[in-house]
Amino acid sequence: MSTDYDNYGYNKDLKELARRLRKNSTEAEIRLWSEALRAGKMLGFTFLRQRPVLNYIADFMCKELKLIIEVDGKTHDDKDQWYKDQSRQKELENKGFTVLRFTDEEIMDDLENVERSIKGWIKDHPPAPPSKGDSGRASIKSQFEAYIRNLQDEICDRFEQIDNKARFRHDDWERDGGGGGHTRVIEDGDVFEKGGVNISSVHGELPELIRKRFEVEQGWFWAGGLSLVIHPRNPMVPTVHANFRYFELYDDEDMNEVRDCWFGGGADLTPYYLWDEDAVHFHQVLKAACDKHGKDLYPEFKKECDEYFYNSHRSEARGVGGLFFDYLRPNEERSAEDWYAFTTEAGDAFIESYAPIVERRMDEPYDEQQRYFQEVRRGRYVEFNLIHDRGTLFGLKTNGRTESILMSLPPRVRWDYDFEIEEGSDEAYLIERLKNPIDWIAYGE
Amino acid sequence: MSTDYDNYGYNKDLKELARRLRKNSTEAEIRLWSEALRAGKMLGFTFLRQRPVLNYIADFMCKELKLIIEVDGKTHDDKDQWYKDQSRQKELENKGFTVLRFTDEEIMDDLENVERSIKGWIKDHPPAPPSKGDSGRASIKSQFEAYIRNLQDEICDRFEQIDNKARFRHDDWERDGGGGGHTRVIEDGDVFEKGGVNISSVHGELPELIRKRFEVEQGWFWAGGLSLVIHPRNPMVPTVHANFRYFELYDDEDMNEVRDCWFGGGADLTPYYLWDEDAVHFHQVLKAACDKHGKDLYPEFKKECDEYFYNSHRSEARGVGGLFFDYLRPNEERSAEDWYAFTTEAGDAFIESYAPIVERRMDEPYDEQQRYFQEVRRGRYVEFNLIHDRGTLFGLKTNGRTESILMSLPPRVRWDYDFEIEEGSDEAYLIERLKNPIDWIAYGE
Repeated sequence: MSTDYDNYGYNKDLKELARRLRKNSTEAEIRLWSEALRAGKMLGFTFLRQRPVLNYIADFMCKELKLIIEVDGKTHDDKDQWYKDQSRQKELENKGFTVLRFTDEEIMDDLENVERSIKGWIKDHPPAPPSKGDSGRASIKSQFEAYIRNLQDEICDRFEQIDNKARFRHDDWERDGGGGGHTRVIEDGDVFEKGGVNISSVHGELPELIRKRFEVEQGWFWAGGLSLVIHPRNPMVPTVHANFRYFELYDDEDMNEVRDCWFGGGADLTPYYLWDEDAVHFHQVLKAACDKHGKDLYPEFKKECDEYFYNSHRSEARGVGGLFFDYLRPNEERSAEDWYAFTTEAGDAFIESYAPIVERRMDEPYDEQQRYFQEVRRGRYVEFNLIHDRGTLFGLKTNGRTESILMSLPPRVRWDYDFEIEEGSDEAYLIERLKNPIDWIAYGE
Repeated sequence: MSTDYDNYGYNKDLKELARRLRKNSTEAEIRLWSEALRAGKMLGFTFLRQRPVLNYIADFMCKELKLIIEVDGKTHDDKDQWYKDQSRQKELENKGFTVLRFTDEEIMDDLENVERSIKGWIKDHPPAPPSKGDSGRASIKSQFEAYIRNLQDEICDRFEQIDNKARFRHDDWERDGGGGGHTRVIEDGDVFEKGGVNISSVHGELPELIRKRFEVEQGWFWAGGLSLVIHPRNPMVPTVHANFRYFELYDDEDMNEVRDCWFGGGADLTPYYLWDEDAVHFHQVLKAACDKHGKDLYPEFKKECDEYFYNSHRSEARGVGGLFFDYLRPNEERSAEDWYAFTTEAGDAFIESYAPIVERRMDEPYDEQQRYFQEVRRGRYVEFNLIHDRGTLFGLKTNGRTESILMSLPPRVRWDYDFEIEEGSDEAYLIERLKNPIDWIAYGE
């Protein structure tokens, strides 16, 4: 992947600066991004935010179009200087980039006009060579790849805002056989004891395990996704897991003939001390995202989540559920584009489903016994992930990167023999709630 | 199982006293036990040591023969009193028991004569109804059941002798579908932070998982075994695991027609800080036990152990190995009785293979960083047991008792992302040793 980035003048040293700039976006930048550019809104093309290009950072950049969009307004002295620098301008042109510039006022006063300008430019400058898919639009695969890259940025930025102390460390890795990933891990934070937000984009010949599962003799695949697990320090703050992924299966090694494709993913919450209202909030936000794409989706994916995240050997759920979906293929009701829109909507909803819960519980007091209970319950989390979780086992058995996969495991864990819980306690309340699925939406009404 | 015990007047309140008596055996008792009675030596019948019968504790007792053997020598005032008590004597007779008494001198001076006396009595008093198997001998199944019960006593007694503080707690449990077990767990000891020594004897219709594995439509089974895992507190003391088991498969529900039978088991060592001499000692003791039953056994079972206890997703062994054997069926070279003799020999060797290592390392000093490393390595132990261990997964998927199965998991565990080890350190030395199997016997020569 890094080679690909480098073709576009990606400068890794600028990562940290880019991160800070994303955090300090102006209102106009945020509006342009969220209403006109993100998630393929601009004619299906994928834009990246605050992306290092050559030796500077572009506000927005579309690789495929070689288009840079700059928002002028906040002090841009350095940047102006840079664009005035003729040698750099020339270098950009040599790389084939175009820069469109808009002011804060243009964006805030008449966004429609700004959108029209950008669309006009794109129609006059279709990407060359034309990308696959219908009418020059970016492929779902490349859209999704850019989407998860952005989502990773947004999620990590938000978590760093919440945590006073820790920062995500970054690890790029490559997969033998094709592709790689970008792992971000936070450890020893004030709020987050351990957490990881991974993206990966891998491809190659189908591993034997998948060939068997799909009963195919031969095939090639591409798989991209974002996967995260967050273990807060305070036992009053629940653990969360989320995953959004897309898979394509090909007849040919060049990955042109798509034989099959599907989306998968979900998000689920694992409290140690349960406030019912937290579970209600989590489900409400996810349901709202689902409902935009069909009223049938939430009930189905909520049920699948309850069934999937179940520790059968303990006769209890891992947590209070959320969404789980898999094998979302184009069908008579919904196209691949529809499922893309749904999956990214769910991805977009994640932060809002979880961050407010963290913020309202992170300062709750707790004692050593509660911490002890949290560590025992984390043992159940480990049990689920290592015994039952298809994703974990699949990753470990198909040459995945072990450290990135097992990043999901909690930092400190206990196993006591036959740990006992006092009747009528907060701990007993949680366990009781995990015995049978609960309709949290009805509960919250 | 408890009902069965009760038929023989088993009095659970006397357990603790029996334990203490086993610890205080006289030299004569030990000799009679180890040379004439244990492990089916007495015409294949199974004797139990210091077994509660009615309201007293017999030195040795054979359920099947209803025979009690008493050794007189150490102060037996209370006991004499008891036997003189006519009402008790009568009660014993009513239960059909016979008591044979020998003095310390008889045993130490002429054990052969004592053995002849006991054999003579047995030949004159064959058990009624006659047990299955050849010529009235106890079946392998019932011999093995008694064997593991005794072995559990011996192992727990020895561990309690070593630990200053903690005692094993006892848990009897029953299995839905037939049989049950007896779990003993030690926690928070001075030496042993957590450990369990389980025996179980379960039977019933074959679970679906086994029917599939053996490709049989229908069948019944009996399975008995001892399984132990010990997690010492001091990181200088290795963790150990051992297991000895016997399995019978039947055509009929009454378990008369044995279709198939086999032994399995082994023992393996998992150090955190490695003294090579400990690994050498462990292997030497196990090899000596194997060699008594054929020079071919140790090399084969040592190799199987290295292959089995391998964390493929980490590209390292769980520990320094030991023995692993399974599906030891009667064949042209060895009968079921031969495999019984081998398996119990390996079981008998266990204490000697491990206890001396504990004793020479338990007072080694250690610091917080070493403790930290131990907790990280324990994470690898959990990973093996939950991801790769067939025994654990099989137990969890066939309605085994979860707490007894997962008793194997360490008490306190850590998962750090991408934990790093200093080159040339003791920690690096261990990891290096786990990369490829080592011939510890050759190493020790």
